[in-house]
Amino acid sequence: MKRAVFFVSDSTGITVEALGLSLLSQFENVDFEVIRRPFVASENEAREVVRQIGCAAKERGQRPLVFTTLIDPRLAAIVHLADAFCISYFEAFLAPLEAELGVKSTHTVGRTHGSAGNGGYKHRIEAINYTLAHDDGVTDRDLAAADVVLVGVSRCGKTPTSLYLAMQFGLKAANFPLIPDDFERGELPECLRKNREKLFGLTIQPERLAQIRAERRPKSVYASLANCRREVAEAEKMMRGEGIRWLDSSHKSIEEIAATVLQELQTHKPARAAD
Amino acid sequence: MKRAVFFVSDSTGITVEALGLSLLSQFENVDFEVIRRPFVASENEAREVVRQIGCAAKERGQRPLVFTTLIDPRLAAIVHLADAFCISYFEAFLAPLEAELGVKSTHTVGRTHGSAGNGGYKHRIEAINYTLAHDDGVTDRDLAAADVVLVGVSRCGKTPTSLYLAMQFGLKAANFPLIPDDFERGELPECLRKNREKLFGLTIQPERLAQIRAERRPKSVYASLANCRREVAEAEKMMRGEGIRWLDSSHKSIEEIAATVLQELQTHKPARAAD
Repeated sequence: MKRAVFFVSDSTGITVEALGLSLLSQFENVDFEVIRRPFVASENEAREVVRQIGCAAKERGQRPLVFTTLIDPRLAAIVHLADAFCISYFEAFLAPLEAELGVKSTHTVGRTHGSAGNGGYKHRIEAINYTLAHDDGVTDRDLAAADVVLVGVSRCGKTPTSLYLAMQFGLKAANFPLIPDDFERGELPECLRKNREKLFGLTIQPERLAQIRAERRPKSVYASLANCRREVAEAEKMMRGEGIRWLDSSHKSIEEIAATVLQELQTHKPARAAD
Repeated sequence: MKRAVFFVSDSTGITVEALGLSLLSQFENVDFEVIRRPFVASENEAREVVRQIGCAAKERGQRPLVFTTLIDPRLAAIVHLADAFCISYFEAFLAPLEAELGVKSTHTVGRTHGSAGNGGYKHRIEAINYTLAHDDGVTDRDLAAADVVLVGVSRCGKTPTSLYLAMQFGLKAANFPLIPDDFERGELPECLRKNREKLFGLTIQPERLAQIRAERRPKSVYASLANCRREVAEAEKMMRGEGIRWLDSSHKSIEEIAATVLQELQTHKPARAAD
């Protein structure tokens, strides 16, 4: 029987779930069943969660694991009464942090999202709108406003990476496909050359690319391994020639690709464009 | 002088940053400066981070705060040598969790993303592609495949919410605007009526809507408060009449809206459509 895992939060539960899953991923041979309880905001709701935890414990004959980010100490105390192994994030770290900073915490619910870290709701919405409007080379208008312009062959991961950069980090992320026309001409389109310092390339193993393309257009030339090999080789040659930084997206998650791009943008300050 | 905060990770650093920011947001009157150090994978890189922490400590005359999710105990031990107040998640929680589960953890780097929690890379990419192809009522083809269909007046937050549902939770999230034509006709478009059990509404305060629309089209009828009031009232009336669940997006972050929609989808199993 799978071990029950509760993620309990007074807000979205996204942070506590990320923490819990990163810990649980260290136990490959244990099967877990995740039960989410976000937006627990009252004592009654906390008591209801305790009841559900109790039921899961009884049903499975094993006490559940409970991860919580309840900020209100009264709610946290209630959940602690549950028949469970409980990891309470704020309880573990707020007191030592208060001691270190020499001030009391404000015990306020749900301040993480929307304001601080991600640079404000409006800023993110603008970044998302920009990114959607500049997906897949749809337009080269207003590229001057981009924080980054991803380039690479069709289906190498540009769109999800752009969206993640916008959503998570508030970056205006345009993306442009590198296509056979560019390879024949032997140079980047003008609009990209003018923004060379913002370019970041994605590449991909031809075998993986062929697989992805075949799901869209089975048995096409577009998806054939020979064609994928040629396009990837041409794209890498072009990026090398133009001095564009790039990374291989083949075995990386969207988060890893996006975080790598962000790190590269921050550590290597934009070089002046050559022309 | 701002207190330096280091987020140190052997992977993207997204989780450790979310955790750290949620703690720091409890200290409203302290100014922090965030320094990200993702992808710390070797002892040399760990020592370099220790050096940077030392510099920050010297420069500011205050030891930095360091949040880490380093799984490799050797790297964690190196970072712990730094002149800093250090919160190390795996160190704090892995040992008790091992004791509870009765097994040793595998100490493997970067297993969080891409495989477990988010349902696999391919699944998420499919969800993102579906969501992009079904943004803003662009097509009603293949709505049967949607996990959720968001509806609401133009600019009430449907697009970012849909994208977040796809990106974070792997849901195929279509969205349709409710427009004056629908209100005049007095009923939902046919394609939506057929998928009523998947509909979820977003609404918004007219004042906030007018503000958002004015940024796009200043001084237009579209953005006028009177028009926004009318559209919102009509949309809410329609949703009420059709028995569509909805929430007010006015003061919520994208994460909060998406997590609420997800929770509603999970707790209220789809009712059978009335027709």
